[in-house]
Amino acid sequence: MSRSINLAVIPGDGIGQEVVAEGLKVLSAVLPQDVKLETKEYDFGARRYHATGETLTDADLDALKQHDAILLGAIGDPGVPSGVLERGFLLKLRFAFDHHVNLRPSKLLPGVATPLAGQPEIDFVVVREGTEGPYTGNGGTIRKGTEHEVATEVSVNTAFGVERVVRDAFARAQARPRKKLTLVHKNNVLTFAGHLWTNIFNKVAAEYPDVTTDYIHVDAATIYLVTDPGRFDVIVTDNLFGDIITDLAAAVSGGIGVAASGNINPSREFPSMFEPVHGSAPDIAGQGKADPTATVLSVALLLRHLGHDAEAARIEDAVSADLAERGGLPARSTSDIGDALAARVAG
Amino acid sequence: MSRSINLAVIPGDGIGQEVVAEGLKVLSAVLPQDVKLETKEYDFGARRYHATGETLTDADLDALKQHDAILLGAIGDPGVPSGVLERGFLLKLRFAFDHHVNLRPSKLLPGVATPLAGQPEIDFVVVREGTEGPYTGNGGTIRKGTEHEVATEVSVNTAFGVERVVRDAFARAQARPRKKLTLVHKNNVLTFAGHLWTNIFNKVAAEYPDVTTDYIHVDAATIYLVTDPGRFDVIVTDNLFGDIITDLAAAVSGGIGVAASGNINPSREFPSMFEPVHGSAPDIAGQGKADPTATVLSVALLLRHLGHDAEAARIEDAVSADLAERGGLPARSTSDIGDALAARVAG
Ligand SMILES: CC(C)[C@H](C(=O)O)[C@@H](O)C(=O)O
Ligand SMILES: CC(C)[C@H](C(=O)O)[C@@H](O)C(=O)O
Repeated sequence: MSRSINLAVIPGDGIGQEVVAEGLKVLSAVLPQDVKLETKEYDFGARRYHATGETLTDADLDALKQHDAILLGAIGDPGVPSGVLERGFLLKLRFAFDHHVNLRPSKLLPGVATPLAGQPEIDFVVVREGTEGPYTGNGGTIRKGTEHEVATEVSVNTAFGVERVVRDAFARAQARPRKKLTLVHKNNVLTFAGHLWTNIFNKVAAEYPDVTTDYIHVDAATIYLVTDPGRFDVIVTDNLFGDIITDLAAAVSGGIGVAASGNINPSREFPSMFEPVHGSAPDIAGQGKADPTATVLSVALLLRHLGHDAEAARIEDAVSADLAERGGLPARSTSDIGDALAARVAG
Repeated sequence: MSRSINLAVIPGDGIGQEVVAEGLKVLSAVLPQDVKLETKEYDFGARRYHATGETLTDADLDALKQHDAILLGAIGDPGVPSGVLERGFLLKLRFAFDHHVNLRPSKLLPGVATPLAGQPEIDFVVVREGTEGPYTGNGGTIRKGTEHEVATEVSVNTAFGVERVVRDAFARAQARPRKKLTLVHKNNVLTFAGHLWTNIFNKVAAEYPDVTTDYIHVDAATIYLVTDPGRFDVIVTDNLFGDIITDLAAAVSGGIGVAASGNINPSREFPSMFEPVHGSAPDIAGQGKADPTATVLSVALLLRHLGHDAEAARIEDAVSADLAERGGLPARSTSDIGDALAARVAG
């Protein structure tokens, strides 16, 4: 646990600006007096791209490396072609800083609306691999734009990359009361990658006899997420499957207004990045309508990563209490919710 | 519309046997006297694999080619290693017979339970590409079993393959009252394949000015499937994304007990195959507990494919009436449900 936090702040575009302001408000309120918080803001995102054509330069990466962690709001606007900021900023950062553990908790808190009937109990964490699979940018196109075009996407999976994220997931499962870990893949069709994942999962499982394990195909996992989400405790999965099921997981456990995530480098060789799962939502930007809860919960993940567990727990408790009280999502403005949470964690 | 149907029947394993018997019962009952139905049963699946080590030989393919269509129950049992029957039978058949249109309708019928709150209106069709994408078996493994193993999976996408399925989907959308088509992909990350899909989709869209179109990333699509499934009319998507979202679609629209599918070769160069989305469910096999509705609805898709639209509609109406009456799933045995449906379509 460090006595100072040197934080890079990337508000980004649209509601990113608004929710990050509230995240910082709560962070300042929760930190003990003797922990020094320094923040530096970076202007990455669509605005900078429109102004300069840049997404993330080597100099930017060098600057970010100096920080203990990164807090991101959201980036993107409809004026930027699809893929430019995703590949040029978000994924570039995950790869450059080796964010191989993409952590996405799903907990249906009391008072929060879910599209599922019967208000089921939901409390699980997805450990999504963050630096391999179909996300590597391998692949290409020949005969582009002709009737003979062929486009490929190559999913790259290494024993090194799979084993480290599987180990991380086992350790997380072992630390939870239910001690259960589910591997989600599609090993009956993607047999090359599937066997690598399955073999490594089974090998590591032998070292964790107290962790219950099972395997589910990704298609079936989407069924369980709506019919029996309570069956999940910790899930470990590939980059693309993790992308898909964590959006669904967020939807059933209160929506992306409350879904937090961490792009984590557990070795701390590079700073980890924490961000709400939602996007920049240009349609509601600037209106004080965005729910900052997902960002505030991302701040809790950030604090836990830096060893400030007690402060992380205070934030999570404050969010639970706030949601239970308001009995649903936005009745108050973005900053009113931030103020309420800041007051709770301070008190 | 043919005056005879020469059908290949593959009951398969587990509940496959039971549900196919009911599907055939309803098929016989619905056909007019002057349509001659011939069926030939094939023993493909886990039993044959255990007995002979064979999954699907060249001679098998030659035999199947002689038929007008194929009705499949379900194949697989826990004794067969993952991937063997999937790649060696199911996918081999889809590829050999060029089943490039994988059709999966989702309709929440009155009286059917859904895990979603508020009983939303759901009535859409997914047109899943069936012969490309990550399903081609391209890829491989080096240094297998070592700490330096690398496993790849290659998604192959061609202008030819994408355009034909996109055209099929536009034609289906145009024939429906709402005339709306949604492309589901992940073109912000899988930019090579994503641009191919998006460009072809937009090109064909120009020929269908009366069809409304939109685009959604696959991760966001899973959110809409649980928060606003009514927004979908026809969806066209890649093989793997289609696999994932159609299981979720089945789950929200009554479960895999009622989800039908067709693996269609629209040119009729080879026979198309119709099957319930569910698997062989060894845990409930032989107990008369399986719901044959998904198979019966697959028979309706089969009849429509062969031009027997009136008979297909009679089956769909019978299923709706039956479900509305029983107000939920299995209260009766597999064959009782089949008898009830056969009586309705005959009458
Ligand atoms: C924006 C996109 C690159 C990203 C992803 O696919 O990982 C997002 O969907 C996410 O889940 O963080
Ligand atoms: C069994 C498997 C090969 C198959 C697929 O992935 O296509 C199944 O999940 C399906 O959706 O028909």
